[in-house]
Amino acid sequence: MSTTTPLLVVGSVAIDSITTPFGSRERSLGGSATHFSVAASFFTDVGVVAVIGDDFTDDDKAVFRERRINTENLQSIPGGKTFRWAGEYGFDLNTAKTLDTQLNVFADFNPQLSDTAKRTPFLFLGNILPTLQREVREQVDARFVAMDTMNWWIERTPEELRKTIAVVDALIINDAEARELAGEPNLIRAARKILTWGPQMLVVKRGEYGAALFTRDSFFAIPAYPLESVFDPTGAGDSFAGGFMGYLAQADKIDEITLRRAIIYGSVMASYNVEEFSCDRLRRLKPEEIRARFHQFKEFTHFEI
Amino acid sequence: MSTTTPLLVVGSVAIDSITTPFGSRERSLGGSATHFSVAASFFTDVGVVAVIGDDFTDDDKAVFRERRINTENLQSIPGGKTFRWAGEYGFDLNTAKTLDTQLNVFADFNPQLSDTAKRTPFLFLGNILPTLQREVREQVDARFVAMDTMNWWIERTPEELRKTIAVVDALIINDAEARELAGEPNLIRAARKILTWGPQMLVVKRGEYGAALFTRDSFFAIPAYPLESVFDPTGAGDSFAGGFMGYLAQADKIDEITLRRAIIYGSVMASYNVEEFSCDRLRRLKPEEIRARFHQFKEFTHFEI
Repeated sequence: MSTTTPLLVVGSVAIDSITTPFGSRERSLGGSATHFSVAASFFTDVGVVAVIGDDFTDDDKAVFRERRINTENLQSIPGGKTFRWAGEYGFDLNTAKTLDTQLNVFADFNPQLSDTAKRTPFLFLGNILPTLQREVREQVDARFVAMDTMNWWIERTPEELRKTIAVVDALIINDAEARELAGEPNLIRAARKILTWGPQMLVVKRGEYGAALFTRDSFFAIPAYPLESVFDPTGAGDSFAGGFMGYLAQADKIDEITLRRAIIYGSVMASYNVEEFSCDRLRRLKPEEIRARFHQFKEFTHFEI
Repeated sequence: MSTTTPLLVVGSVAIDSITTPFGSRERSLGGSATHFSVAASFFTDVGVVAVIGDDFTDDDKAVFRERRINTENLQSIPGGKTFRWAGEYGFDLNTAKTLDTQLNVFADFNPQLSDTAKRTPFLFLGNILPTLQREVREQVDARFVAMDTMNWWIERTPEELRKTIAVVDALIINDAEARELAGEPNLIRAARKILTWGPQMLVVKRGEYGAALFTRDSFFAIPAYPLESVFDPTGAGDSFAGGFMGYLAQADKIDEITLRRAIIYGSVMASYNVEEFSCDRLRRLKPEEIRARFHQFKEFTHFEI
C-alpha cells in the first residue's frame, strides 16, 4: 500500500568500510539516506528514495524495517552492487580520508517517486549530484525542502549547485563548506552571502563546536554535546539533518522557536550516532534518552541575565 | 597613595607591530597586562604589575590613565626598552605568525609588589614564565587566582607549568593549548584530566567558536559573538580574561551563575577588542554597548524546552 509520509529523503544507501583509531568494521551499513532516515524515524514517519543492489542483505533491510521506514521508493537493482565507500579517520576524528569509492548501482541512479511520495510536505535532499537533487525537488510538491552538499560538488559543479540551492528553503552544510561555497573566510559574511541566493535559512554544522542557524534576521548557535569519546563520526551530519527535519515534520511548522528546537534535536541525534559504528547506537536508542540530552543542552547553555 | 584594588594582573606591557590583511600598524600598544586591564577596568578597579622602558610614551601611558588603571606596580626601567612583538595574521585570522620578539626590559622582569597589592582578592597571572607566575601568586594573599599560558611553556617548561597550575583556581587557555597540555585530542577528556591537577575550573577559549567552562561537576559553553569583520585578533584572549575576571571581582563571588555571566562578559570584551588595532575600540567603548552585546548573547543562545 502506498502512503504519503510527512518526510522524504533522497540520498545514498551504502555499504561502508570504516577504520577509526578505536577499531574497524569491514561491512557497515551507511549512506546519507540511511543515517538521515534512522534519526528522523524517532520523530515522524519517513520515506527513503535511494537505490541498492542485490548484495543488500536481510540484516541490512532489518534496520529500515525496525524503524518502520517507508522503503517503497528504495529501488533494488537485480544483479547490481550497492554503493560502497571505504574511509579512515585519524586521531582527531575531524576528517575522513576516503580510501575507496565504488558507485555501483548509484552510477545510474534515476530517482523514481511514487505519486504519494510526490505529495510529501517535508523533503531532504541528501548529498548527491546537484542535478539529481533538483530533479527530485521538482517532482515533489513539498512545503519545506532542505539540502546538503559537499566540497566535491562545490568545486566541480558550482553552477548546477547554485541552481539547486536557489530552489530550496534550507541549506544544511558544515562550516568549511559554507566558507568554500561563498568564497569568504568569515562565516558570518559567508552566511549572509549564501542567503541572498534563495534559501530562507542556512544551518551550519561545526562538528565538535556545535551548530548554528542563520536566517535573514536571526542568528542562533549552540555548542556540541560534550562527548568524551567519539567512536565513528560517519553519518554525524546526516543524523543531525534527520533529527532537524524529523522534528520539523513532527511539529509541522517552521517558526523560530521550532527551528531552534530542531537544531537541538539534530545535535542530540548526531551525538548518539557517533558513539558506535553505523546506526548501532540509534537502533537501540530510547525516546527518553533523546529527551535527556535535549534537557542537558539547556543546562549547558543557560545563563541568567 | 597606595591602594588595594579588587583585581591585579601580572603580565606583559608591549609595543607591538601588527600586520593584518586589512592594514598594519608599526607601533601598537599591546601586551597581556594591557589588554587585560583595559577590559577589566569596565567592571572594577584594576592594578597592573609589569615593566616598561623609557621608550614608553605619554600617549602609551594615557591609555592606563584614561581607564583609571592603577600603575603603582608598573616598573619603569631608565635606559631600558619596552618588550616588543611583531606579528602577522593571514586571511583566516586564526593564528599569528611571530616575525620578531625582543624581550628587552622583560628579560630581567622581577615583579615587585607593594604591600597593598599583596592583599588583592582577585589575581590574574598573564602569559609569562610559569616560575614568575608562581612567584607572584605566592606573594599575593588572593581569594581567587586565574592564569593563562601558551604552547611555548607547555613544550619548554612542562614541570614548572604544572606546579603553577596546581596553585591556581582557574586556568584560562585556548583549546589547542588544552589538548596539548593534557596530551589528549578530545577536549572533554583533556578538561577532566587538567582538573585533576588542582584548579577548580578550566575556561577554554575557542576563538570564533566561543568559549567553554569546565568545573568538576558542570559544563557550560557559548558561541562567539557573530562578528562580520575581525580586524586585529591581538589581545582577544587577554581582553576575554579581563572581562571574565573584572566581572567576578565586581560581583565579588564565585558561584556557577556568576561564572557563567563572567564567561559572557569575557566574550563581549573580546568581541569589541578585535574590531580595531590595539585597545582603540575599548578606549571609546561605552557601558551600554557592553550591556547590549550581553543581551544579544541571550538572544543568540536561547531556546524553549
